[in-house]
Amino acid sequence: MVRTETTMATTSLKHPSSDDEAAIRAVFERVGRAHRSKDAAAIVAPYAADAAIFDLAPPLSHRGIDRQGVQAWLDTWEGPIDLETRDLDITVDGNLAVCHGFSRLSGTKSGNGPVSIWLRATVSLRRTEGVWRIVHEHTSVPFYMDGSFRAAVDLKP
Amino acid sequence: MVRTETTMATTSLKHPSSDDEAAIRAVFERVGRAHRSKDAAAIVAPYAADAAIFDLAPPLSHRGIDRQGVQAWLDTWEGPIDLETRDLDITVDGNLAVCHGFSRLSGTKSGNGPVSIWLRATVSLRRTEGVWRIVHEHTSVPFYMDGSFRAAVDLKP
Repeated sequence: MVRTETTMATTSLKHPSSDDEAAIRAVFERVGRAHRSKDAAAIVAPYAADAAIFDLAPPLSHRGIDRQGVQAWLDTWEGPIDLETRDLDITVDGNLAVCHGFSRLSGTKSGNGPVSIWLRATVSLRRTEGVWRIVHEHTSVPFYMDGSFRAAVDLKP
Repeated sequence: MVRTETTMATTSLKHPSSDDEAAIRAVFERVGRAHRSKDAAAIVAPYAADAAIFDLAPPLSHRGIDRQGVQAWLDTWEGPIDLETRDLDITVDGNLAVCHGFSRLSGTKSGNGPVSIWLRATVSLRRTEGVWRIVHEHTSVPFYMDGSFRAAVDLKP
């Protein structure tokens, strides 16, 4: 098993220059660039058709990423969308990888002004015929347990 | 890679009777029983000391499960806590496993009456010296994108 981490110290095995890690980091970098350029096709490209998606918005779960839905969402932003990933922890064994870290989604929402939200993200990938594809993605923010049930969109890692 | 799923049909490899799957399901079953019996020690037992926890409540992330914190949380419930797991998808390769599914947490909160919330849960486990331990857990509900930022605690899978 190969486990690497960008910034957090761990007692685990570390192989920060592994080919697997580089290939998986490249997936995240391409998705980040695709948000900045608002390229729906490039955003959906790494997802398996039946990927189990636990998204920020309801429902609890859905299968696959719909390119037209991504395009409609991109159209709700003015100008580029910035997707910054921090503290990405990647663990690989064989053809399975699991990654977790934080993502900051920021930009300007049409009619609503600037937005900047830190999310938690857990992503699992499977390698098929040499290509790493996202088979599960879970993004969320916590919610306040003060009785308000308000989503905690104001936290920082 | 071994991938199994309780109820959802997939096109993936299926080895529903694998020893790995049975061992991992047993982890979830023990945690479920530990909630019903409100046994803090048994709830924390399967977690690695430095497990990365993305919890329902803030902060975004913390390391490890604190038994005293679990005990304090258990004490906020009257009687047993029911933790039902549904549609648990387990993928294993070597010593790494990633699981995702839904959990219903229900019971009676002291002073607040009955509670029943369906969560999404993603859990990754690592096998060390033959024992599967939880190294990452991400539980959440989505939030409503209607401007209310209200946590969606009323959804069903």
